[in-house]
Amino acid sequence: MSTRTRRHLLTLPIAMAATIAMGPGVGRAQTDALPSWNDGPSRGAILDFVARTTSPGSPDFVAPEARIAVVDNDGTLWVEQPDYAQGAFVFDRIRAMAPDHPEWRHQQPFAAVLSGDERALAAIGESDTVTLMAATHAGMTTDAFARIVTDWITTAKHPRFGRPYTELTYQPMLELLEYLRAHGFRTWIVSGGGVEFIRPWSERVYGIPPEHVIGSSIKTRFEIADRKPVLMRLAEIDFVNDGPGKPVAINRFIGRQPIFAAGNSDGDLEMLQWTTRASGPGFGLLIHHTDGAREYAYDRQSQVGRLDKTLAAAPQAGWTVVDVHADWRRVFSFQ
Amino acid sequence: MSTRTRRHLLTLPIAMAATIAMGPGVGRAQTDALPSWNDGPSRGAILDFVARTTSPGSPDFVAPEARIAVVDNDGTLWVEQPDYAQGAFVFDRIRAMAPDHPEWRHQQPFAAVLSGDERALAAIGESDTVTLMAATHAGMTTDAFARIVTDWITTAKHPRFGRPYTELTYQPMLELLEYLRAHGFRTWIVSGGGVEFIRPWSERVYGIPPEHVIGSSIKTRFEIADRKPVLMRLAEIDFVNDGPGKPVAINRFIGRQPIFAAGNSDGDLEMLQWTTRASGPGFGLLIHHTDGAREYAYDRQSQVGRLDKTLAAAPQAGWTVVDVHADWRRVFSFQ
Repeated sequence: MSTRTRRHLLTLPIAMAATIAMGPGVGRAQTDALPSWNDGPSRGAILDFVARTTSPGSPDFVAPEARIAVVDNDGTLWVEQPDYAQGAFVFDRIRAMAPDHPEWRHQQPFAAVLSGDERALAAIGESDTVTLMAATHAGMTTDAFARIVTDWITTAKHPRFGRPYTELTYQPMLELLEYLRAHGFRTWIVSGGGVEFIRPWSERVYGIPPEHVIGSSIKTRFEIADRKPVLMRLAEIDFVNDGPGKPVAINRFIGRQPIFAAGNSDGDLEMLQWTTRASGPGFGLLIHHTDGAREYAYDRQSQVGRLDKTLAAAPQAGWTVVDVHADWRRVFSFQ
Repeated sequence: MSTRTRRHLLTLPIAMAATIAMGPGVGRAQTDALPSWNDGPSRGAILDFVARTTSPGSPDFVAPEARIAVVDNDGTLWVEQPDYAQGAFVFDRIRAMAPDHPEWRHQQPFAAVLSGDERALAAIGESDTVTLMAATHAGMTTDAFARIVTDWITTAKHPRFGRPYTELTYQPMLELLEYLRAHGFRTWIVSGGGVEFIRPWSERVYGIPPEHVIGSSIKTRFEIADRKPVLMRLAEIDFVNDGPGKPVAINRFIGRQPIFAAGNSDGDLEMLQWTTRASGPGFGLLIHHTDGAREYAYDRQSQVGRLDKTLAAAPQAGWTVVDVHADWRRVFSFQ
């Protein structure tokens, strides 16, 4: 039995006592909490952790200012298959910009995107991706890019579900974010995706304000254009917020030790390790996509959101693995 | 008359009406606000701006989530003469570490620091500074560095005032931070100094939590040491948060347009421009150190905190220039 498991068992009576002490009203609220989660070990572990860390008198009590939760975005808060939304955004932008770039018809990797030819698309490599990112993400002000993202996110549709990406957020995770905040946690997105791709809509969709979004970024440069200060987006990587970059960014942006982390891929391994490193309470949640009927089923073999070594590390580390098929009553709000 | 000045005049009656409408209790609170500020144009402009942006019904009303204030640290919140506190920290660390580095006695720039020889110290150049920073700021974990800073800040004394640096914060600015927060603003430090040098004490001293501190940074690397995840501080610059870097960092960390900025040097010029760029309300506060008796008097000729082009730009930009001698009843809380 791991130290973590032992601590769980030892503090369980305290969590139960706290629930009872709060009286029937609060007790029922606890029963009603996380309604899109099936009763089971995952839901139970979350409720237990929140009770232990927020009940005054609990040995695991954490002061509100230290209740930091860090949550991945793609595959943890919203769908990431068959490709990241930001990938679809790049393709849509290339098509939208093509009339102003007639040369793209004969220039790779643009021609591949515009033709939609499967074989040409499969040949797109890493340096091509950088070319596509530069063409669609740089060379405009931060203000202009925010408008482009806002326009796209309100009109683009997912290829399988035919709905806006913002409707393809996981209902159980939206409830979890809300539940954590209702218990004094501050919720931060820590995404491998572009920070400026998420910020324009994160508050509306997740209740997470721009200043609580951490992501990958390109460099920007301060300029005075027409007597007005602007920030120009440059075709130069600033920071890749993935894998070991996530703890680095958490320290850089938050400057505090999180006590709750949720992720779904090997890009979240170090964030989970970092969050659960302390001797005090720390919770790791790992979403395992196991439901091809309602969403997608993928892990070790997946090109997008590959989940292998993090899943292997979970039992020893004491992380809670969500089995989407078994644990989630609904995946999306419309189901 | 600038647009800004005109807007001031136009909205003044609304601010006054709001104060009257709030009744005598609140009216007196307004009179009592910022007690270490003398009555005068600087205090008046601050009270007016806060009233205009926070009174419901005011045409300049700003929703609470958009009330972002960004404030420089050295020379704006605490004393920066005769040298930045972080400079004193570097020298103290070199002396404290010297017993473990006998070779430093014969190796520049360490020998200059250890001897205290004025001529040798004057010869310290930019690459020497990098060497000293690397020796004192890198090669340990973030946890260890935070402990070192905490130890230093509680024991080090300022050479002229003989008090801890945390007592050499400007009382009028502490009141201003408190006043802004009481009116729904969120206050962020945006400092040229090292972010990890400020975070360990910013909450205690300024009421500003670590996640609201932006500063210069060195790179860190995630490692597993003795089975425990740590972040190692590397001798490599990550970001210099000064001048045009400040708007870049504000966008990167906050992702929102601030509406209030305070600074005191040419390193704050672009932050003030950025904050007051919008057609909506924006306030720029510039501290001009004019009181050599109570603190220091310096501007254009100063090595530390040089204030030249920002002071020249202030009238046209409509920024409020604080004359420390005239505007501040007290500089430090102990006066």
